Amino acid sequence: MKNLAAAIFTLLTTISPALADAVDEMIATDRAFALMAADKGVPAAFSAYASVDVRMFPDGGQPYAGRDELIKRFSKWPEGAEMKWDPVEGMAAPGGDFGFTWGRYVFSQTKEDGSEFVEHGKYVSIWRKEDGAWKFVADIGNANPAPNTAD
Amino acid sequence: MKNLAAAIFTLLTTISPALADAVDEMIATDRAFALMAADKGVPAAFSAYASVDVRMFPDGGQPYAGRDELIKRFSKWPEGAEMKWDPVEGMAAPGGDFGFTWGRYVFSQTKEDGSEFVEHGKYVSIWRKEDGAWKFVADIGNANPAPNTAD
Repeated sequence: MKNLAAAIFTLLTTISPALADAVDEMIATDRAFALMAADKGVPAAFSAYASVDVRMFPDGGQPYAGRDELIKRFSKWPEGAEMKWDPVEGMAAPGGDFGFTWGRYVFSQTKEDGSEFVEHGKYVSIWRKEDGAWKFVADIGNANPAPNTAD
Repeated sequence: MKNLAAAIFTLLTTISPALADAVDEMIATDRAFALMAADKGVPAAFSAYASVDVRMFPDGGQPYAGRDELIKRFSKWPEGAEMKWDPVEGMAAPGGDFGFTWGRYVFSQTKEDGSEFVEHGKYVSIWRKEDGAWKFVADIGNANPAPNTAD
């Protein structure tokens, strides 16, 4: 029974990595995602980090599903528009292979008349570990006032 | 080794219930949550189904954390305002104890001048099984046009 108990303990600790590690991994992935968006553009970053199964919930639009549809929609991303974000925190499932991050974003776009449109918001991204890599399975955001020192 | 293999198999099937079951459970919980909101009011339902750890992302407002804060905010829920929702689908973590549901909501409120304000939207609720009961750990929504036959 000692060997069985030891085997089960090993098994449990192997399949249940520390949740703190999963949260750290998701936040690091979300940061890498944001860096890729700044470096290679928002459409390239979203198609790289989206799960094939992704569910998207664009503010003001109908929800849609699937990475193929995401790529099609993001191909119409307005030229010069920027989306910058930074994760604030995350929470992981007990198994360490699913969870979410949330953070704040700033969307900015120079309009045809030269004026600048800026929107502040927050987002929630839900992540799933797929073949060792974290992919987002859902993404939703909404607007909020620009953060102030009280928040 | 046969006994060890059998014990591990039992252990794995015990701690990894079918994901379909977890999705069904989360959707049933979300429906019960919506029914309670219709029956007992939105503030009572949100305080009953929120995790102590909940993260809230109100559209147009700053994010906030904790069920105590949620109860405080929802105590200011406008009289006569209604929030109706229905989950569309869900996705579960491999362990079957974490996941999300999403659906559509309709918020309606009769204003002081007697006019009716109606907003259509969609939401994502993230759920965690806590001592056998599903509680939402995050809730976020945003607006969309009223659904039409094409959606």
